[in-house]
Formats: sequence, C-alpha cells, structure tokens
Amino acid sequence: MPTALPLIQPALCCAPLVREPLTARDADDLARRMKALADPARLRLLSIVAASEGHEACVCDLIEPLGLAQPTVSHHLKILAEAGFLTRSKRGTWAYYALVPGALERIADVLRP
Amino acid sequence: MPTALPLIQPALCCAPLVREPLTARDADDLARRMKALADPARLRLLSIVAASEGHEACVCDLIEPLGLAQPTVSHHLKILAEAGFLTRSKRGTWAYYALVPGALERIADVLRP
Repeated sequence: MPTALPLIQPALCCAPLVREPLTARDADDLARRMKALADPARLRLLSIVAASEGHEACVCDLIEPLGLAQPTVSHHLKILAEAGFLTRSKRGTWAYYALVPGALERIADVLRP
Repeated sequence: MPTALPLIQPALCCAPLVREPLTARDADDLARRMKALADPARLRLLSIVAASEGHEACVCDLIEPLGLAQPTVSHHLKILAEAGFLTRSKRGTWAYYALVPGALERIADVLRP
C-alpha cells in the first residue's frame, strides 16, 4: 500500500500567474513546493521515477545513476514525498517511490498562461 | 530599450520529466531557474508583473503590494532578471520590468507530461 505523506495540502491554489497576482498565502504554498523541486539531485531523482514504467521506481535503482550515497538519496526522496510529488511504499526489502498523479501538472498550470 | 540580463541561457533544455530522465547538466540548469522562482516574494512580484497590462510593471507599483523595502524588492527583481524571467528597462525616473515571453512556459513544459 502506498504511504502518502501529505504534509503539504495536495490541492494547489491558484490561477495562472499571468491572469492574476498570487496572494501571500498561495505564494508561500507554491514557493514551498518549488523549493522541493529546485535542486539538481531531486530533479534528477524525480525524473527517473517519472520516466520509469508506471511512474514508479525502486529506491535500489535510484542510487547508482546519481552516484550519491544511499542516505543522501533517501533524504532527497523524503523531501519530494513531503512536498507531495512522490508516494512511498514498501515491498519486501525495498522501498518504491511513485509519482503522485497531477502533482507536477499543478505547478505547470500556475506557470502557464 | 529593454535591457536583458541573459546570465542564464534562455533556451531551456529538456524533454518533459515523465518522458526521459534529466541529464546532470539539464538538472543543474533547471534547478537554478527554479531556485529563482522558489521564493514567496519573488513569485508575488513575478505574478504582479505577469498579470499587468502588457506583462510589464513599473518598479514604483511593485513596492506597496508586498510591503517590502525598495532595496529588497529591487534585489528580488534582479534575481528574476538574471534567471531570465524578467527584462528591465529604464524610462524617465523609474525602472520597468517585463515578463520574458516563453520563460515560464519553458519551465511548465518540462513539468508537464
């Protein structure tokens, strides 16, 4: 069973930026999510998960491509999960991370006209 | 005349995240741009410029809405300009900031399937 960590509300606020100015609250929420994305290692991990079959990957397949230590990879994955981009599930020895449907699109929708 | 500050290359890399994993270089580039966006004050400033007529605003109209000091606002605007989201032009006493066409869409395109 996937274990979601919805520490940040999944429903994203706001109309597209070009349509109306963001409120202070919406800007805080969006900035928090974007901070989770704005790291090269996290973007690469997220893209590996997102581009995997079923938009899901074993943590065991996420360590070698980046050349980072396993605790570092786990730390980055935790940040992505807490920000609502990934869910984590345990199957046997390994943890699997899956892309949360719609999470990236919600950010994209705010940036698009 | 608008003065662009193209410190980061305007042409953004990469295929959508869900289609193929980001290279290290593309992830660095994308993370740098997203860091410029991932701040509540900068997101609000950018949204005010983007939602203004002609996607352009006088710096004189950007100070009051956020309740920040003028040097702070100028600092945030400089970061957005350096990251390729805004251009700056001087007309009379005031500086004007305009949204760079396509800059936000390029980020959105990477996040969308």
